[in-house]
Amino acid sequence: MHKKIFEKIKKETRKFFRNSKGCHDWDHTERVYNLALHIGRKEKADLEIIEIAALLHDIARGHQDKVGGKICHAEKGAEMARIFLKRYGFPEEKIEKIARCIKCHRFRGKNIPESKEAKVLFDADKLDAIGAIGIGRAFVFSGEVGARVHDINVNISKTKEYSREDTAYREFLVKLSKIKGKMLTKEGKRIAKERHRFMVNFFGRLNSEVQGKI
Amino acid sequence: MHKKIFEKIKKETRKFFRNSKGCHDWDHTERVYNLALHIGRKEKADLEIIEIAALLHDIARGHQDKVGGKICHAEKGAEMARIFLKRYGFPEEKIEKIARCIKCHRFRGKNIPESKEAKVLFDADKLDAIGAIGIGRAFVFSGEVGARVHDINVNISKTKEYSREDTAYREFLVKLSKIKGKMLTKEGKRIAKERHRFMVNFFGRLNSEVQGKI
Repeated sequence: MHKKIFEKIKKETRKFFRNSKGCHDWDHTERVYNLALHIGRKEKADLEIIEIAALLHDIARGHQDKVGGKICHAEKGAEMARIFLKRYGFPEEKIEKIARCIKCHRFRGKNIPESKEAKVLFDADKLDAIGAIGIGRAFVFSGEVGARVHDINVNISKTKEYSREDTAYREFLVKLSKIKGKMLTKEGKRIAKERHRFMVNFFGRLNSEVQGKI
Repeated sequence: MHKKIFEKIKKETRKFFRNSKGCHDWDHTERVYNLALHIGRKEKADLEIIEIAALLHDIARGHQDKVGGKICHAEKGAEMARIFLKRYGFPEEKIEKIARCIKCHRFRGKNIPESKEAKVLFDADKLDAIGAIGIGRAFVFSGEVGARVHDINVNISKTKEYSREDTAYREFLVKLSKIKGKMLTKEGKRIAKERHRFMVNFFGRLNSEVQGKI
């Protein structure tokens, strides 16, 4: 793919994120793009598919958020990507491969990634929720919903999402700590293991600090 | 001080924080209390003064926030503490010592901590802004003001507080990284050094992660 075409696609994709804030903003797409490219190289995947799929993977987030989750942003995003890429004259076969990646990237989605490229995008997207960036995202989300900074005694089963108790530590215990077990590529697994270790260390230290120990 | 009286003071103090959210809520007071007690022991300070001063140090936060910073919560808090503690029959001399601690605990305050106990409270309060808890607080604040999770290229001089660019990393560069140089007690300095190192490591890793390196 010519660099100029790529830059044009990137510029146009960015417009979908004009009003986006929070954890799935344009910054997230850029991070997923960087990570997908890194993993894609290691996995010897088709980098053109990965680059375009990573750029477009969240273009339907706005639609999903607008209707309170009734639309699946992965399925809707795949549809939108098909129309979008036709305009650029991509071959039908390539468009289908890219659309499949987008359709299957969701954590809780019913569509399972099958191609190497779809697995790479899935892993890159999930990895952005763990490690130092995952910690940052989890705390920012807590701030957005007005949650406490920390509660060492959080009771997972009794606390609600979007409440004062929806802390980053709760998110770690409920969801982030399980991501490393969901990875699909070798390089994704390696990175997830490291990022997981980093989070365990972070929250362990946080718990010691709030007790006035260190 | 009798444990029952302490518990009564604690319960009453907590009421001042009924409507507080964010970085200076009751959780912050509890953390500062734990840390002040730890440092106070190491410094062989008067623990009764430290315990009460730590509990009361932010009781005027609500007043300061309400008038957009025109009231100094440290000075106002010292006044309120005097009235509060008289009701509990504390000796005048002790009340004065506690009030001095509260008056001098502010980072940007014009009142300098002189007594050992005032230095302990100052250090404990500042330490809660660094380390793992400082990282958590900084990101939560970013979420509250709608800032981005991270911007590796943040331009400190060009970005504004309370804006989309008011990231945790900016806060680290502008303020948190300087706290270790402000500590007043030996134990405070030791803890600050460690917490500082933890933050440097965290943001270093965050920068590597967002570039898709790890």
